[in-house]
Amino acid sequence: MNDKNEELEGLRREIRSITTDIILRVQKRMELSKQIGKIKAQMNMNVMDEKVEQDVRNSILESSKEVGMDPDFCGRLLNILLIESVRVQKNQQQFKDVAHRQTHMNIFTMAKQIEASGKNIIHMEIGEPDYPAPQNVKRVLSESYDLRHYHYTETTGIKELRQAIANKVGNHVAADQVMITVGARFAVFSAIVSLLKAGDELISIEPAWPAYKECVNFIGSKNKVIETTLEENWRPNITQFEEIISANTKMIVLNYPNNPTGKILDDNTLNKIIQFAKDHDLYILSDEVYSDYAFNGFKSILEYNYDKGIMISSFSKGYAMTGFRVGYAIAKDDIIAQMAKIQATALTSVAEPMQYSALAALEESTAENVKRIKKRLDIVSDKLRKMSISFTVPDGAMYVYPKLKSGVDDITIVDRLLNLGVAVAPGSAFGDSYKQYIRISACQPENNLEKGLNLLNTTI
Amino acid sequence: MNDKNEELEGLRREIRSITTDIILRVQKRMELSKQIGKIKAQMNMNVMDEKVEQDVRNSILESSKEVGMDPDFCGRLLNILLIESVRVQKNQQQFKDVAHRQTHMNIFTMAKQIEASGKNIIHMEIGEPDYPAPQNVKRVLSESYDLRHYHYTETTGIKELRQAIANKVGNHVAADQVMITVGARFAVFSAIVSLLKAGDELISIEPAWPAYKECVNFIGSKNKVIETTLEENWRPNITQFEEIISANTKMIVLNYPNNPTGKILDDNTLNKIIQFAKDHDLYILSDEVYSDYAFNGFKSILEYNYDKGIMISSFSKGYAMTGFRVGYAIAKDDIIAQMAKIQATALTSVAEPMQYSALAALEESTAENVKRIKKRLDIVSDKLRKMSISFTVPDGAMYVYPKLKSGVDDITIVDRLLNLGVAVAPGSAFGDSYKQYIRISACQPENNLEKGLNLLNTTI
Repeated sequence: MNDKNEELEGLRREIRSITTDIILRVQKRMELSKQIGKIKAQMNMNVMDEKVEQDVRNSILESSKEVGMDPDFCGRLLNILLIESVRVQKNQQQFKDVAHRQTHMNIFTMAKQIEASGKNIIHMEIGEPDYPAPQNVKRVLSESYDLRHYHYTETTGIKELRQAIANKVGNHVAADQVMITVGARFAVFSAIVSLLKAGDELISIEPAWPAYKECVNFIGSKNKVIETTLEENWRPNITQFEEIISANTKMIVLNYPNNPTGKILDDNTLNKIIQFAKDHDLYILSDEVYSDYAFNGFKSILEYNYDKGIMISSFSKGYAMTGFRVGYAIAKDDIIAQMAKIQATALTSVAEPMQYSALAALEESTAENVKRIKKRLDIVSDKLRKMSISFTVPDGAMYVYPKLKSGVDDITIVDRLLNLGVAVAPGSAFGDSYKQYIRISACQPENNLEKGLNLLNTTI
Repeated sequence: MNDKNEELEGLRREIRSITTDIILRVQKRMELSKQIGKIKAQMNMNVMDEKVEQDVRNSILESSKEVGMDPDFCGRLLNILLIESVRVQKNQQQFKDVAHRQTHMNIFTMAKQIEASGKNIIHMEIGEPDYPAPQNVKRVLSESYDLRHYHYTETTGIKELRQAIANKVGNHVAADQVMITVGARFAVFSAIVSLLKAGDELISIEPAWPAYKECVNFIGSKNKVIETTLEENWRPNITQFEEIISANTKMIVLNYPNNPTGKILDDNTLNKIIQFAKDHDLYILSDEVYSDYAFNGFKSILEYNYDKGIMISSFSKGYAMTGFRVGYAIAKDDIIAQMAKIQATALTSVAEPMQYSALAALEESTAENVKRIKKRLDIVSDKLRKMSISFTVPDGAMYVYPKLKSGVDDITIVDRLLNLGVAVAPGSAFGDSYKQYIRISACQPENNLEKGLNLLNTTI
């Protein structure tokens, strides 16, 4: 026993000395980073260089595989080194982060403050329907007190609602594959933070709703971006996926009908992406919150019956129930179990009266809402066409994402419009490369939209 | 320019080679871990050794400070090395984790399943009041549809509710220091995950509500436990804090009136803990969800006006509104801002009809509820006394935490009772050292409590 103890002590000494060694080398690595940062500053180069970073990553992962290290662990280690490198280099350059990015939520807050001072604002910045929630919901809200529907529920939600959603979506989904969440946001959050680890990577297609990136940053994972363009009709190319994937890539996020562009992917492209995910064993997080507002053929991830597919939707948009905060995720049982663990830890369960309200909403049709939004989007499209502004006609969702005439950036336009009493979202909220765009939301009556667009016409 | 390019290339070559070097050393480190794991297995030692790990951490952090590395980054790096070490060693040992711990929520789920098969269950396992939410809430629920109170709100909640809570708690709290959350759970979650990082440590006092540990594990921080005993009247000793603190300790969690013991700390002990936190610049997370049910003198963290104090409460217990999922946190603006960022990322805002319901509840008194629970706890206490079972008479909250006669463990008793139609929570749900205890919840009518205790009497 004493021998063993001595052996243990010896190994521990060795492990301490090698740990110190590692730390010293990491320190040396940081110094090299600093020098690189200085030179880049002198050369006016950007700190981030995806291509170089990818090369470093690949060569290191190669050699770590040769010595038989767990690639998962190695990727995580490498990523915290690389992230720290960028931080150090940025400090060296006195790099000013592109001034705090403006999002549609910031603009909404600013617009609310202006309203509080007595001025009227036309709200074309936020994706919150101006029409009411379904009538049935009123009855349910009134009844829920006497029915005492205000207790803890199962973590994944009341069975009736999960079953009703399973019935609605079809595709052989069972109630146990449905989890009710606090809005689609918590579905996205719980999927990303339970399925990814620090150092893992997620591929998102920009322009994109900023929430994905926020969740990825929160968990210390890496957001890898595929950029799409108006000129290519917002269609990603499968070669972009091939170029960007690494051993650490774990998930692709899809969001169609798309916020902000209104794009729906053609079947051919979607098939290729799903096949790519299967080939590389990637999760697909398919955010389908705008699927009620799909005017052209839309195919859900559920139709692929992919084991690592997660479908996310919500009552916020189709049923105009944003403030009820009810969304849901549909996936295989093991994925739901992992997401449920996060929901149990973070918030126990979704408010029961809100779950019953959602159940009542399902009895009603969203057809009127869809017709209304479609008509408004047509009006916006017509108007933009007359203004000779480039955009793609939305296939769905509640937005138009026009490209401003060159020479004017989105923040300038957004500010000018706010002063005139119109709130729109800056294009760059959805990706750094979209400073020439704004997002117009059709969640306002037609005459307001026309007024807003007339004012836009005077400012560009 | 060419010179610069060459220099850049040279530095990049160097950084690649040093990175490979780091990876190789990490690989070597893993091999040492494996060997240690093997020896520990032969010696029948546990893989986790808090003391050794702490020593490694301290010595490494010391040397990294000397070379001027960012201690935060270093702590994270170290942490992923240490976590991987434990994983590697466990694999080596074929280590079986202590069987899944039973919590009050598991028992609740099992009890529900038994009920579904047609049997009656007396629910003394869960902290969910059986009496109704305040009457005012009914009116508000009915009105919220027509008033269209179902939209996104500010991330921190509607101003009226934040102001009403600020007024209620006094102590010069402003509305902007209040954040409305999805139950106290999300207040706890957002505080822990926004204020702690991987590698940081939190001190909790056991027996304790398991949620704190769950949040700590989720973020990769470390839960350090101070154990209290029935014999010492559940009072922690300040020397226990002094023994356990390290350079990585960032937060202390307090929960008084306590779940599960019903204990309220005496002023003297509380003063010492707050002073200890101030001396070591620690956050104090004070979970005060049972403060309505405080029968003996209770002092809120707010009375200390401590910059790093976070008070958490909820409408679930005092107002019997568990299923509305409305809680709140009160802290200095910068802390609230950090917590709000998590809430915005994870779920946007709390459901608006639920916030207005909470506002209506505040107009009413909790006095009747408090009287009811006090009377029930007295009944349970009398009965336990007659059964010659040891326990401390609760100063508050809704529970009694008796110590079973030796020779019988909690899981056995819980199973036996479930078969007889009574659900109670196992003591070990609140800490590994409490297998001799059960938690009895007073959220049942008096006659049910008496029935349940009679059945308990037959099983021990």
